[in-house]
Amino acid sequence: MNHATKTSQLPTIDEIRAAVKRISPEAHRTPILSSSYFNERLGARLFFKCENFQKIGAFKIRGGLNAVRSLSEEEKSRGVVTHSSGNHAQAISLAGRICGVQVTIVMPNNAPQVKKNAVRDYGGQIVECEPNEPARIAAAEAISQDTGATLIHSYNDPRIIAGQGTTALELLEDLNETPDIVMTPVGGGGLLSGTGISVKALSPQTKVVGGEPEMADDAKRSLEAGRIIPVENPQTIADGLKMSLGTLTFAAIHKNVSQIITCSEQSIIDTMKLVWERMKIIIEPSSAVPLAALLEGNLDVRGKTVAIILSGGNVDLNKLPW
Amino acid sequence: MNHATKTSQLPTIDEIRAAVKRISPEAHRTPILSSSYFNERLGARLFFKCENFQKIGAFKIRGGLNAVRSLSEEEKSRGVVTHSSGNHAQAISLAGRICGVQVTIVMPNNAPQVKKNAVRDYGGQIVECEPNEPARIAAAEAISQDTGATLIHSYNDPRIIAGQGTTALELLEDLNETPDIVMTPVGGGGLLSGTGISVKALSPQTKVVGGEPEMADDAKRSLEAGRIIPVENPQTIADGLKMSLGTLTFAAIHKNVSQIITCSEQSIIDTMKLVWERMKIIIEPSSAVPLAALLEGNLDVRGKTVAIILSGGNVDLNKLPW
Repeated sequence: MNHATKTSQLPTIDEIRAAVKRISPEAHRTPILSSSYFNERLGARLFFKCENFQKIGAFKIRGGLNAVRSLSEEEKSRGVVTHSSGNHAQAISLAGRICGVQVTIVMPNNAPQVKKNAVRDYGGQIVECEPNEPARIAAAEAISQDTGATLIHSYNDPRIIAGQGTTALELLEDLNETPDIVMTPVGGGGLLSGTGISVKALSPQTKVVGGEPEMADDAKRSLEAGRIIPVENPQTIADGLKMSLGTLTFAAIHKNVSQIITCSEQSIIDTMKLVWERMKIIIEPSSAVPLAALLEGNLDVRGKTVAIILSGGNVDLNKLPW
Repeated sequence: MNHATKTSQLPTIDEIRAAVKRISPEAHRTPILSSSYFNERLGARLFFKCENFQKIGAFKIRGGLNAVRSLSEEEKSRGVVTHSSGNHAQAISLAGRICGVQVTIVMPNNAPQVKKNAVRDYGGQIVECEPNEPARIAAAEAISQDTGATLIHSYNDPRIIAGQGTTALELLEDLNETPDIVMTPVGGGGLLSGTGISVKALSPQTKVVGGEPEMADDAKRSLEAGRIIPVENPQTIADGLKMSLGTLTFAAIHKNVSQIITCSEQSIIDTMKLVWERMKIIIEPSSAVPLAALLEGNLDVRGKTVAIILSGGNVDLNKLPW
């Protein structure tokens, strides 16, 4: 399937507006914070959209709730299934509970107990599989085939992308100025894809830039090569950013994103700690990546207005990386 | 001096309104957050005024800026002096820098280097003394005598109390409902005193309640006894709450505060961690005290609307208490 075909499957801004209506009863309209410390360090005006304050502690509830609530009554009665060990698992589980839909989550058998508990607390049912990507996909597809449950991929799905796109929609509505640049972290690319669609529809002159760990820089390499170059088992502390782009997210990013900039593992840790110290907010490593790439000097933002989506704040406080 | 005399020295609501004008060019109007988790646990509607997001990471800049900016030009030319090893030291130092006033801070010679550095970064000059209360007071008074610098006590000063009172003024203006209860931590009592004056002027039916560590419960005992009962060298993790009430703050609390409730050291740590985990914001131990006392069940707030001032977020991330 070529890019044009995939592009036609991407959600439009109207579908993102419809997603706003679907998610707004439960999802928070998160605040935007600023920091004179980071403004001074970068010589720029930065605004941080705080999805760490979102329900479940991450933007993922937006896509999850939009996807589950988009289903027909008949589809809802058959349940949903997904594979994830991260924030998407909690998002779909909570969305299922809110919408009265049965949820099955395929998780690697070595997933941390705390993540399993979070899913179970929301009423999700866990099916364990071998800890590798093919096993996860196979298990989820088998469940979907057997039970008729709808498979909701964590990013390569137009309903998920539309839900994540609501973050930037709110950001642009709530900011009192037009940003020169909007940045998000990029893993599988759901957030960056939805952000690109919203930004290009509402503020075409604004550039959309992704931030990615050097150790998992498949999106950067894919965008530069003009084709998907997956990354295999990347080692990064930003555990939300280990996935490779999918066909849909590649098409969306190829169409709307100007550039992807990267940062080192040490920068991620240092920046995360600096945000905690200076802004008094808790962000997870993935959230620190765009700012870390700016602090490394990998994009000149002097004099610019830059809005950064802080994607989440789910961190084990007993295992901090410093 | 009796209570009536001291009460006449307390700032009025008009003086707190004047303080708003003095501090607003630099101090943040901090946001108010809520948490469905804590609402459900307590069966109440809680609102948190986030002074951890304030400049210098604590409400103390309000009092510091109000006090320094209140001085005459002649007084400003002679500088200011105070004794503090905590947030007040940074507040006066930054206020001095903003107003072009020379600042001397008396600090115990065992104060952590990070606190000394923070003062020096703002341009404050440090004079060291023996690490005890009489030595601090004597050193600061000697400097004031020698140089003509104005001594600004960290809480027992009407200008400081008026500045701290701006927090509750903003809180009541920004909340869309009338709280049944407003809570703050209490150490020396500057914040609780200013809060009481603002709340009783703007919303007389609202109760004002203090939260205090069991291990430093001088304010509770003083309020119950009707006279100041100081605490000596208390051992609590809430290092912002070790001071005893002063004559002015006792008079203010005696007049306007309904009750002081306490909590254990373990509750402070547990509550602090829970706020980090659930609200994704960083608060210091002192800030956790009112909520910790509620979670211990020491005041029945079921069905009530309770506003809590989170006083600050200055924590050494390398030395967490869990």
